[in-house]
Amino acid sequence: MNRDRINRVIEKMKENSLGQMIISDPYAIFYLTGNLIDPGERLLAFYLNDKGSAKLFVNELFPQEISSDFEIIYYNDIEDGVKIIAKAIGNDRLIGIDKKWPAMFLLSLQEIFPEKKYVNASFIVDQVRSIKDKEERRLMRESSQINDKVMADIVKLVSKGYTEIELGEKLKELYKKYGASDFSFSPITAYGKNGADPHHVTDKTKGKRGDSVVIDIGGLYKGYCSDMTRTVFIGEVSDKKREVYEIVKEANLRGIAAAKPGNRMSDVDKQARSYIEEKGYGKYFTHRTGHSIGIEAHEAGDVSAVNDDIIRPGQIFSVEPGIYLPDDDFGVRIEDLVLVNEDGNEVLNSYTKDLLVIE
Amino acid sequence: MNRDRINRVIEKMKENSLGQMIISDPYAIFYLTGNLIDPGERLLAFYLNDKGSAKLFVNELFPQEISSDFEIIYYNDIEDGVKIIAKAIGNDRLIGIDKKWPAMFLLSLQEIFPEKKYVNASFIVDQVRSIKDKEERRLMRESSQINDKVMADIVKLVSKGYTEIELGEKLKELYKKYGASDFSFSPITAYGKNGADPHHVTDKTKGKRGDSVVIDIGGLYKGYCSDMTRTVFIGEVSDKKREVYEIVKEANLRGIAAAKPGNRMSDVDKQARSYIEEKGYGKYFTHRTGHSIGIEAHEAGDVSAVNDDIIRPGQIFSVEPGIYLPDDDFGVRIEDLVLVNEDGNEVLNSYTKDLLVIE
Repeated sequence: MNRDRINRVIEKMKENSLGQMIISDPYAIFYLTGNLIDPGERLLAFYLNDKGSAKLFVNELFPQEISSDFEIIYYNDIEDGVKIIAKAIGNDRLIGIDKKWPAMFLLSLQEIFPEKKYVNASFIVDQVRSIKDKEERRLMRESSQINDKVMADIVKLVSKGYTEIELGEKLKELYKKYGASDFSFSPITAYGKNGADPHHVTDKTKGKRGDSVVIDIGGLYKGYCSDMTRTVFIGEVSDKKREVYEIVKEANLRGIAAAKPGNRMSDVDKQARSYIEEKGYGKYFTHRTGHSIGIEAHEAGDVSAVNDDIIRPGQIFSVEPGIYLPDDDFGVRIEDLVLVNEDGNEVLNSYTKDLLVIE
Repeated sequence: MNRDRINRVIEKMKENSLGQMIISDPYAIFYLTGNLIDPGERLLAFYLNDKGSAKLFVNELFPQEISSDFEIIYYNDIEDGVKIIAKAIGNDRLIGIDKKWPAMFLLSLQEIFPEKKYVNASFIVDQVRSIKDKEERRLMRESSQINDKVMADIVKLVSKGYTEIELGEKLKELYKKYGASDFSFSPITAYGKNGADPHHVTDKTKGKRGDSVVIDIGGLYKGYCSDMTRTVFIGEVSDKKREVYEIVKEANLRGIAAAKPGNRMSDVDKQARSYIEEKGYGKYFTHRTGHSIGIEAHEAGDVSAVNDDIIRPGQIFSVEPGIYLPDDDFGVRIEDLVLVNEDGNEVLNSYTKDLLVIE
């Protein structure tokens, strides 16, 4: 299976007239080799060329199983790993570089080969990764099913007097209970005005009657991430909060409706955003509408005004409009993951989007 | 205080005839501004020049307190942050670049200014950071005092039948109890043959009579990291394990004795390593002797054969020789942090290095 993925990347390199490239992102390497290596500050690189060569460069501190899909080349702490990679570089003037390669390595390689041209080529791996294969779709469905169960359980706890951090601890137990190995990102459980900050870091705040509670959570299941947001209310809901909730919900539904083959990623953003603008809250929707997801919680492929890429079957991304009103001490965000299929999409989350008031 | 640190970096830029530089590492920026920002995949950069200009470029999603020490320039998700930085770049041909800057940003900047020369300039900030100021020394002492207490408590638990993961959970409680906010790195508690892998990932192994237990732990206290290793034995210790233990202990002491101003970092490595080699175990000491530490558990400045930098007062680094014997199902590592002073050094850890057999 991994060689199949490697071959798909090499095919895409050929389509883009790129003869060779260096991939360094640990998750991209995991996707292509099955080996998840956290090299810390040390060099890790996977070299591919259009003749089919595939070489993994890794510090000998991280011994790997031998694979028939690619060659493994070790270096040690007293060697210069970039010089060792340089020996594998072909005569082509062009070298594709991983968008995340730390400058220290790129600058070293540019010093060895000053005449070559270096280009960001991550889009090649990203495009292959963005189309989830059958096995990946199955795992993404299962991961989101777990997230639905966790959401159902945690929603019941928001009125029990727990702090945000305590809710986070409950979440950890719930993901474990339902078979997830970890969070896919640090969960957000934001009461009241904390929910008016879309990137609020969970603290010791407790919820009070009338508060909104933004719950943005995800788990990691067999290497695949879930990610969902619901906003619920404790005890009662004011007219303004209800109005804003229904606007965000409709924006979420309109975004999802636009997530189909042939449309652009920006269309999803536009459908969600224009509805919120129409209702007068445009300037309070302060972030992009969503992001791609898979083995990482955030993968390449934003759902934003500036991404005009055509949507294709097999893509999975979030649709998560929000309205944030710090002056009114609340925020609302509603997020689902969608898997694009031939006709439209399959929403991977089934937990209700009806407005919930928790007693 | 932060402007003082910024000024020290600018002074060092002048010493190195570097007119401008871009710093992107979040911890380097934290050190210089007091602002700890985790931008995820988004651009974060701190621009300095030799005229005293200091500008922080950050996505508007991460609003920062205004500071009199530097200017803050926001960009948003639909703008190209690198183009905004480019406006601040001066006429000098040379631009210092952060060693960790992701290639996607560097390649974009190189496209805007193809005629400029880009150099890895992180050593400038790293050198300033490596000399801990008075306040930092105090915090590093306190952080290591907590680590001593945690070590004393955890050592008593190694013969109680806990798995490595369970010991990790106990450690979390202990750091909290003694006032640390978090681990400074994922703790290693490795029983028996697991300890023969210096980078063992904690698992469900339980210890048994005769096992060595490698305990490599550290906490985060007011932003400063501790890091210490002890190796103890459960119930009994074989002659070979005792022999190896005493060799590693002597290597640790010899390394520490070499940690003084005027010596080189490589001298510390040499003193520890040559003793182990002399005793016939050289090829089983498979890693560098240590690393610098401060607001990050691993900072620039290895204690290794290839780092010939002169040691200077104010530096703090680990001295952690080890011998790893997979064929004998055990490993031993002994690690302390040292703070270099005018005359020699102050060892920040006081927990005993006598061989301990835990009943």
